[in-house]
Amino acid sequence: MVQAARQSGTADRRAVFELFPRRLPPGRRYGVVAGVGRALDAIEDFCFDAAAVAALEGVVDPDMLDWLASYRFSGDVWGYAEGEAYFPYSPLLVVEGTFAEAVLLETVLLSIYNHDSAIASAASRMTLAAGDRPCIEMGSRRTHEQAAVAAARAAYVAGFDASSNLAARALYGVPSTGTAAHSFTLLHDAEADAFRAQVQTLGVGTTLLVDTYDVAEAVRLAVEVAGTGLGAVRLDSGDLGEVARDVRAQLDELGASATRIVVTSDLDEHAIAALAAAPVDAYGVGTQLVTGSGHPTCGFVYKLVAREDADGELVSVAKKSTDKISIGGRKYALRRRGPSGVAEAEVVGIGAVPEDDGDDRPLLVPLVRDGEVVGRATLEEARARHRASVAELPRSVTMMSAGEPVIPTVHLGP
Amino acid sequence: MVQAARQSGTADRRAVFELFPRRLPPGRRYGVVAGVGRALDAIEDFCFDAAAVAALEGVVDPDMLDWLASYRFSGDVWGYAEGEAYFPYSPLLVVEGTFAEAVLLETVLLSIYNHDSAIASAASRMTLAAGDRPCIEMGSRRTHEQAAVAAARAAYVAGFDASSNLAARALYGVPSTGTAAHSFTLLHDAEADAFRAQVQTLGVGTTLLVDTYDVAEAVRLAVEVAGTGLGAVRLDSGDLGEVARDVRAQLDELGASATRIVVTSDLDEHAIAALAAAPVDAYGVGTQLVTGSGHPTCGFVYKLVAREDADGELVSVAKKSTDKISIGGRKYALRRRGPSGVAEAEVVGIGAVPEDDGDDRPLLVPLVRDGEVVGRATLEEARARHRASVAELPRSVTMMSAGEPVIPTVHLGP
Repeated sequence: MVQAARQSGTADRRAVFELFPRRLPPGRRYGVVAGVGRALDAIEDFCFDAAAVAALEGVVDPDMLDWLASYRFSGDVWGYAEGEAYFPYSPLLVVEGTFAEAVLLETVLLSIYNHDSAIASAASRMTLAAGDRPCIEMGSRRTHEQAAVAAARAAYVAGFDASSNLAARALYGVPSTGTAAHSFTLLHDAEADAFRAQVQTLGVGTTLLVDTYDVAEAVRLAVEVAGTGLGAVRLDSGDLGEVARDVRAQLDELGASATRIVVTSDLDEHAIAALAAAPVDAYGVGTQLVTGSGHPTCGFVYKLVAREDADGELVSVAKKSTDKISIGGRKYALRRRGPSGVAEAEVVGIGAVPEDDGDDRPLLVPLVRDGEVVGRATLEEARARHRASVAELPRSVTMMSAGEPVIPTVHLGP
Repeated sequence: MVQAARQSGTADRRAVFELFPRRLPPGRRYGVVAGVGRALDAIEDFCFDAAAVAALEGVVDPDMLDWLASYRFSGDVWGYAEGEAYFPYSPLLVVEGTFAEAVLLETVLLSIYNHDSAIASAASRMTLAAGDRPCIEMGSRRTHEQAAVAAARAAYVAGFDASSNLAARALYGVPSTGTAAHSFTLLHDAEADAFRAQVQTLGVGTTLLVDTYDVAEAVRLAVEVAGTGLGAVRLDSGDLGEVARDVRAQLDELGASATRIVVTSDLDEHAIAALAAAPVDAYGVGTQLVTGSGHPTCGFVYKLVAREDADGELVSVAKKSTDKISIGGRKYALRRRGPSGVAEAEVVGIGAVPEDDGDDRPLLVPLVRDGEVVGRATLEEARARHRASVAELPRSVTMMSAGEPVIPTVHLGP
């Protein structure tokens, strides 16, 4: 496309691309933006080194190769802050530059946003369902090995407390926590040997896995080996609510009343909610987290919404279609809030900034200016943004049942 | 776990781990193994360099760090060949080594197998549904940016013809093909200008996207610009079957009877099957491919099935559970085939090789011996394996409706 646009003299036309969702996944009431920090890294790093250029020989023309070799994004980007809630047609990213430089970012920006936001959107429902109980990300093994690292990061943005993915710790500072597998118990001749080895190595604060053989016997052994100061036991099978009640009673009877109960086993937000009344202290979540709990991608698209014409004027453009609606024009957005601070609507201004009635909150922040990243936030800031954004949504946001977006999207024309 | 096993003197016990599915995704009749080549790369490359060791300071003890710094897998691995069909409890990988060296591979092996096989399993149903018509992978933007490269590779294993992912071309030699986006047409002041630029740059064999404005007008323009030798037109919206019929008639009338029709737009195996009678020449598949068409992970697990005891004897082990069945013991597998060559059962021998009745096919091939990769296959070999394996399955394999596995899994005791 870039080569052909260079041919027709349109490659350097000023262009505005927008990354947005046409809808939420069926039944979801809100989404959560994640991947912003990774996308900024990707924009900064986006270049064609000698190997990349060599790999494109024969795919594009030689002078296109030269152009690619000197490529750096030099335009501007605005976007929703990482951790922000989003709704249908929220203009999550607005990318302005020449057509050629902006169109090249399409795939990497969509990949990062579609993946990370799918994970964060699922994670947010899980942490809402878990309330004050911590959620731990344990899904690395059920997704692509690099996606796993991004998933741990996105889950952390949306309120998870820690991850078992050590690369996410090294790369992003996501707190790490671990667990022993059944193989560790099975490796030993007796369950008590395994518990003893783990406690000697990791201290009594460790979490012992107690469902390899008989749960009641394992709990008894665990307290015998670690003492009543044992940190936690983990349950990974059976009717978790029922078993947790039995184990809680047994631990209390043994004097281990401070020993926590961690549950795992294909949990999703519904299973977490169903365990609200059970004596469970923490949730370990794997498969359903890293696969977006039924919605592994957000369906974000990246569309040209405005571009320079032959006279140098910026004109709105959009595909004409009845089944895939795109709205031309550069967008601005704010979250309309009532006097009590509760969100009432996602207001998207087309070609003009919507008027703030005093209680509203603008949603687009500068991320890149003249090719320089200016909007980098820490993960802790993203976590705070997530907490605050979800807290101001209508209370129906906590409903786990399928439903409509908790606030409508309102478009304001130019 | 390794640190604790070193503490208890069990880390160097000989151990056999097995990677297997407990079930197929609901309704699926077969699965396809992919990622074998990537897993072998991962085993070869699995080590802890200075940066990785430094990142684990404080997580594990100093002498554990030393052990990690010198880690190389030195054991043996057998597995199903890449492209092979699989069924519940197929022993897809058998990993033998010390506990410590084999347990460390758990996450990376599961990540690769769970992801790549989910994509290949979905892709296989799509290529079956497409019959002789080529399928093109176009889903990079809807999945994590690195998962996208692996997805393109897995789709190719399962019969896709090409991918839009250029990194998959560079890394794995997956044939690449491209398409223009609506943004390219919208960039130009007139649709004809865009078509002209594309044809001048890429030749008349290119594929023109004809649904940005009015399809009939675009088809007319496309042939006017490119001539009757135009390679193809692409449709990306509307009722694809209906529109394809109209476009075919129009192309034929214009004399462009060799111009092909490529369709895209959230296709899955069901949509592809539904278009079988429409005049469509190729399918471009994105979202549903890279998300495994409803099943983004295979649910493979990696379980310790045998290990050395205190006397140096290998003993079978398994977790006791009623809801998560694991079967202890080292496994062997063959595909039982009738005299006509049609598959009849997945036969899994526990602790012993099942007897081959002459028409059967052994499924486990050596992949790694004493830490050296010995079972590397080319992607073309994996594609051939996929074609042959699917071809020998019962004919119900082509049914797109939900159903049971097309062959049963039979366990033979020791």
